[in-house]
Amino acid sequence: NTSLKIFSLNGNKPLAEEIAKVVGIPLGKSSVKRFSDGEVQINIEESIRGCDVFIVQPTSNPVNEHLMELLIMIDALKRASAETINIVMPYYGYARQDRKARSREPITAKLVADMMEKAGADRVIALDLHAPQIQGFFNIPIDHLMGVPILADYFDTKEEIDKDSIVVVSPDHGGVTRARKMADRLKAPIAIIDKRRPKPNVAEVMNIVGDINGKTAIIIDDIIDTAGTITLAAQALIDKGAKEVYACCTHPVLSGPAYQRITDSAIKELVVTNSILLPEENKPTKIKQLSVGELLAQAIVRVYEQESVSILFD
Amino acid sequence: NTSLKIFSLNGNKPLAEEIAKVVGIPLGKSSVKRFSDGEVQINIEESIRGCDVFIVQPTSNPVNEHLMELLIMIDALKRASAETINIVMPYYGYARQDRKARSREPITAKLVADMMEKAGADRVIALDLHAPQIQGFFNIPIDHLMGVPILADYFDTKEEIDKDSIVVVSPDHGGVTRARKMADRLKAPIAIIDKRRPKPNVAEVMNIVGDINGKTAIIIDDIIDTAGTITLAAQALIDKGAKEVYACCTHPVLSGPAYQRITDSAIKELVVTNSILLPEENKPTKIKQLSVGELLAQAIVRVYEQESVSILFD
Ligand SMILES: Nc1ncnc2c1ncn2[C@@H]1O[C@H](COP(=O)(O)O)[C@@H](O)[C@H]1O
Ligand SMILES: Nc1ncnc2c1ncn2[C@@H]1O[C@H](COP(=O)(O)O)[C@@H](O)[C@H]1O
Repeated sequence: NTSLKIFSLNGNKPLAEEIAKVVGIPLGKSSVKRFSDGEVQINIEESIRGCDVFIVQPTSNPVNEHLMELLIMIDALKRASAETINIVMPYYGYARQDRKARSREPITAKLVADMMEKAGADRVIALDLHAPQIQGFFNIPIDHLMGVPILADYFDTKEEIDKDSIVVVSPDHGGVTRARKMADRLKAPIAIIDKRRPKPNVAEVMNIVGDINGKTAIIIDDIIDTAGTITLAAQALIDKGAKEVYACCTHPVLSGPAYQRITDSAIKELVVTNSILLPEENKPTKIKQLSVGELLAQAIVRVYEQESVSILFD
Repeated sequence: NTSLKIFSLNGNKPLAEEIAKVVGIPLGKSSVKRFSDGEVQINIEESIRGCDVFIVQPTSNPVNEHLMELLIMIDALKRASAETINIVMPYYGYARQDRKARSREPITAKLVADMMEKAGADRVIALDLHAPQIQGFFNIPIDHLMGVPILADYFDTKEEIDKDSIVVVSPDHGGVTRARKMADRLKAPIAIIDKRRPKPNVAEVMNIVGDINGKTAIIIDDIIDTAGTITLAAQALIDKGAKEVYACCTHPVLSGPAYQRITDSAIKELVVTNSILLPEENKPTKIKQLSVGELLAQAIVRVYEQESVSILFD
């Protein structure tokens, strides 16, 4: 008969606040600051002895700061006799470094998993891992939630869109499974952008496999980072006859030229979740952010009540 | 019959260059950059299969960046079949978080040790750990070198100083052993600054235990961070009759107000090592930096040749 505590680090406090509100408890009292020399200083300001503790922390940019905050918090909770330490990680930094694509590359996604386990994590709740295989990097239970239902519901209930003219587009071969899931929910067909480099050092050609003529295309990806792929894909769809193009993803990394590219692009609206906190300055108005707070809150309560989380999987 | 490779990350490239030069080999080819979203991107540009690899990386400010670079490099080397992975860590970030001084504090120095071991480090060469007990945080061999001989030799050969008038001063009770070592080398007596708070919320009183009247005081510490303690100690020594005050330490963290305080202080010269790279801008001219490159190079060669490193301990 333990009690439930939810703590936030600096990754995404508004999301953590929302989760705590849905669960119906206040966030645990803690502060995460820096010493004068930049070292992380964590103060947990209430007892957590014997509690089931959930830490909400996406390891978004600055990823190394957010990751070290998380590891140090896990260490502090373990030494303070928490009953279980559960990591709610809406965005998993370094997920793209999940295999050796070239000689002598690290597999940082596995390193991160090892670090969390070694620090003392008992369980992870993740959302749309870049590769589902990352689940296998852990020896502790990991619940893998999906953003697709939230994104699909948004388009399903959006008045301006003619439901019968939707085509869901995968921006590359790797994303077809995700596009298929979205299409099933919207009862729509799919198309695939088929990039091909005819010769080395020659520009890529974007072919489209599937019928998009006169249709409302919705491109779906897991991460949008510099937005190069997605904005080129949108232009290719318009060039090949799509009526309009929406884009969506779970994780709006949106680094470097992303904002400018999205603003300048053929994309009508970019729909993302709040797995990553976006700074409000200069945020293009065509970005729409949907909340995963309710989904994560439900997962926390189910884990705490020792009920299956799989009901949340679609 | 393996071969020796030395790599540098971004912590202190000039020191790594110097070490490689003393050892007599070029630094291993690698680059440590950031992806657009801030994630660490490491490229090891030569084969290291079967090699004894040494990574030079002080985890100084920005500590979390430097530490993650190190862990990811270890991961990459391990997966690229290095024979042994040896960490040359002239400065050990988070060393001050080495115990629970209050409830629910982390012990980040132990977390860092666990992370390095879990990532795949085989051995650590460290310099003046804030507490020698940190050696026990590791289950792998750790060589613990001392900066005192280098600092002492500097004062011993400095012409302006009258050798018979030296007194070595510890700025607190915790540092007396270090001061004693220095004093032995200089054949000088010691004194101790004895801070005491008569009542809560009343300013500290600085008493000096030992004779400093008319003497050349040399304060020694392991780390100088914001320089508050050391500059107040220098003033107390002058007020109580010292002829002049020098200060020295192994690790010049020098964060926040440190430069200004040192410039404004009674300290005649501050002698430090290059365990931490100091930015040249605004560096007070009264800071003198001595190199630990020769010492670390010797340690690397002895470890590589499987000879005892203890000969370097004083
Ligand atoms: N933070 C990052 N930003 C851009 N590319 C990355 C990042 N991390 C890893 N990668 C590279 O992206 C590739 C994986 O992307 P993907 O093919 O979409 O799974 C790998 O070849 C990685 O080297
Ligand atoms: N980076 C840091 N800057 C300032 N103080 C720190 C830092 N890391 C740990 N501490 C605190 O410094 C104390 C240890 O210092 P010491 O008594 O000199 O060993 C502990 O109480 C820590 O909470």
